[in-house]
Amino acid sequence: MIQSRLFTKTRKEAPKDEVSKNAELLIRGGFISKEMAGVYNYLPLGLRTLNKINKIIREEMDAIGGQEIHMSVLQEKGIWQKSKRWDKTIVDNWFKSKLKNGTEVGLGFTHEEPLANLMKNHISSYRDLPIFPYQIQVKFRNETRAKSGLMRGREFLMKDMYSFCKTEDEQHKFYEKAKKAYGKIFQRLGLGDITYLTFASGGSFSKFSHEFQTITPNGEDTIYIEENKRIALNKEILKEKENIEDFKEKKLVPQKAVEVGNIFNLGTKFSESQGLYYLDEKGKKQKVWMGSYGIGPGRVMGTIVEVFADKSGIVWPEAVAPFKFHIVALDAANKNVRMEAEEIYKKMLGSGIESLYDDREAPAGEKFADSDLIGIPYRIVVSEKNLADGTLEIKNRKTGEVKKVAKEKILNSLLQ
Amino acid sequence: MIQSRLFTKTRKEAPKDEVSKNAELLIRGGFISKEMAGVYNYLPLGLRTLNKINKIIREEMDAIGGQEIHMSVLQEKGIWQKSKRWDKTIVDNWFKSKLKNGTEVGLGFTHEEPLANLMKNHISSYRDLPIFPYQIQVKFRNETRAKSGLMRGREFLMKDMYSFCKTEDEQHKFYEKAKKAYGKIFQRLGLGDITYLTFASGGSFSKFSHEFQTITPNGEDTIYIEENKRIALNKEILKEKENIEDFKEKKLVPQKAVEVGNIFNLGTKFSESQGLYYLDEKGKKQKVWMGSYGIGPGRVMGTIVEVFADKSGIVWPEAVAPFKFHIVALDAANKNVRMEAEEIYKKMLGSGIESLYDDREAPAGEKFADSDLIGIPYRIVVSEKNLADGTLEIKNRKTGEVKKVAKEKILNSLLQ
Repeated sequence: MIQSRLFTKTRKEAPKDEVSKNAELLIRGGFISKEMAGVYNYLPLGLRTLNKINKIIREEMDAIGGQEIHMSVLQEKGIWQKSKRWDKTIVDNWFKSKLKNGTEVGLGFTHEEPLANLMKNHISSYRDLPIFPYQIQVKFRNETRAKSGLMRGREFLMKDMYSFCKTEDEQHKFYEKAKKAYGKIFQRLGLGDITYLTFASGGSFSKFSHEFQTITPNGEDTIYIEENKRIALNKEILKEKENIEDFKEKKLVPQKAVEVGNIFNLGTKFSESQGLYYLDEKGKKQKVWMGSYGIGPGRVMGTIVEVFADKSGIVWPEAVAPFKFHIVALDAANKNVRMEAEEIYKKMLGSGIESLYDDREAPAGEKFADSDLIGIPYRIVVSEKNLADGTLEIKNRKTGEVKKVAKEKILNSLLQ
Repeated sequence: MIQSRLFTKTRKEAPKDEVSKNAELLIRGGFISKEMAGVYNYLPLGLRTLNKINKIIREEMDAIGGQEIHMSVLQEKGIWQKSKRWDKTIVDNWFKSKLKNGTEVGLGFTHEEPLANLMKNHISSYRDLPIFPYQIQVKFRNETRAKSGLMRGREFLMKDMYSFCKTEDEQHKFYEKAKKAYGKIFQRLGLGDITYLTFASGGSFSKFSHEFQTITPNGEDTIYIEENKRIALNKEILKEKENIEDFKEKKLVPQKAVEVGNIFNLGTKFSESQGLYYLDEKGKKQKVWMGSYGIGPGRVMGTIVEVFADKSGIVWPEAVAPFKFHIVALDAANKNVRMEAEEIYKKMLGSGIESLYDDREAPAGEKFADSDLIGIPYRIVVSEKNLADGTLEIKNRKTGEVKKVAKEKILNSLLQ
């Protein structure tokens, strides 16, 4: 992408009403803009990054048998009354609205109920199970406070997978598979080393559920880490520590963290309340066992910013960066510099290497500051000085390391 | 995709509450499910089809300089009051809700206001213009009646592009470019021959706006076609016929049609009401000229079904079909048939050819009926009879034409 054509501009100052580091930097870099507290728009750089995150999640969901769908925001009261989750004394963060005829509708904050209901048309026999539909779709939660940028939204993207299984055992086996897939996702996202499988209360369905918690000083949660096994438990079940085999008599280290994913065994509550059953091999009616598996791609994006940013700006891991290379032409009015920079940009385009080409006529200091703020992993500086000695500089955004590469070897070097 | 693993099942009967052909067939085929009137979920086959449509739209928007973004559903009252579109006497189909503190919020039915507002952070100089952001995002309209399936939704996907230009002339030039891009889109979607550029009222900003109307007997609109120039005008401006050069003294043919796209010159109404201006070369403050360009990908999907379906089911044009080939193994329990079918399926997978492989053990009649209903362009029948004479049958869903191809030549034949 040619930077002079990118419509977003960076900003030197963070907006005054933003207190979270992720929103400050993402807004300053032109990745997102704030519509209202907890509600953000994704601008071109932000959407590119989000799509990279979504692609990784999608690939890992497909790999464990996921089938992608896309469900509606608007929710029918009757379906939610069956599981008793319509009432605001049970779920207090609904957004609700009304049809013209006065019928109340809700804005989905999750999708167990409508999905179990629609599955009545597709599940009837043991042959139809197990199945694992998932979606990446917008959710709504009417939070009282929403000051954490992309970390806690009133409107936010969610990847939610649901499992429908024949038996409790089949459900538990898939749950373990999903747990592993989540581990892979956070590894690929660059968060693997600081993300902990965290035991949480299982509610009425199961002994435990699990959260994936990423260590960050600005996290809203505190988790208690058992470093040898690389697992943790959350505050909610800290008092049960000595009753849990994995944590018994272990020294736990408290850390601030943000919940980037969670997985639940749901038992048969939602399937039964919607009247979803199947007939087994003997023609006998049986309950359907469910699980749910969530990740917030926007929250992941915010977390990555919180975790890796330095004083100069964002530092994207390669896997989710909007571009891999930032070609910065210094003194872009200089014909030689411009020709050389364009040539590299076009060669990269041709080789399928994603780059942002800063062709703007602006002072070097401003260009470097913007480049640091935007946080693309590798910066290639094209300047008259470099051209004179036949080399180009490649700077690693994360380590600050600068490598000089002979001009004619630049593409080979990048493709390695 | 292996059909026995696809969680959706076809249905023989349409749901009783659906009266539109598109919803009936799409629900029977397992492409979508109804959440409530005018609100649908996209199931795996439906989402695949929708993604194909979106890809075509995206490519043509990118080709004219579009930059993709993704804006929020939740809308702030203050921004919409500036253009006077918050009030329900002006816009009567808002869905509105409330934050916990009682603040009213709306669910976006379009995005001129918030986008013009956010552009104040990115447009200040003539150098920043023109720009053409677009999104493919969910919209909400509180329709009194919603009985047309995907053709008129309370919740529906919209591709909405907005242009921001320096002058009226620059805006008009882009408008013509967008018009051409729309023509290409409908051509690529397989609707080119029956989609008419239709003159409509321009409102207070412009003499005319333009709709893209696709001829179909179940269309909600009537258009008046001038066949020689392949243009039309809508009911709204029929009385002005003789004042419009292109239609003057021409015989017009009325036809039922559905509006699949629309483009507007918006003038400076929305930019001015949000306080969006730029400084020209002389440092003088100038107005920003806007346009908007909409296509409903879900409505396009519904229209394609309405237009091409026959008595046996859906007929997808190749460009948007969920798969290009449907491999149907008859007597799938037969080992030879299964091996042969699997081999073809795997070869296609390896060659990047998309196919649905019906490996289900079901009667031939049921398999053919399902295949016709789902509407994949080419059906490859693998049966013991075919294997015996060393050929495979390829049936064209649209024409019914059956071609026999020597078994060993099948892939070569497909790749042509």
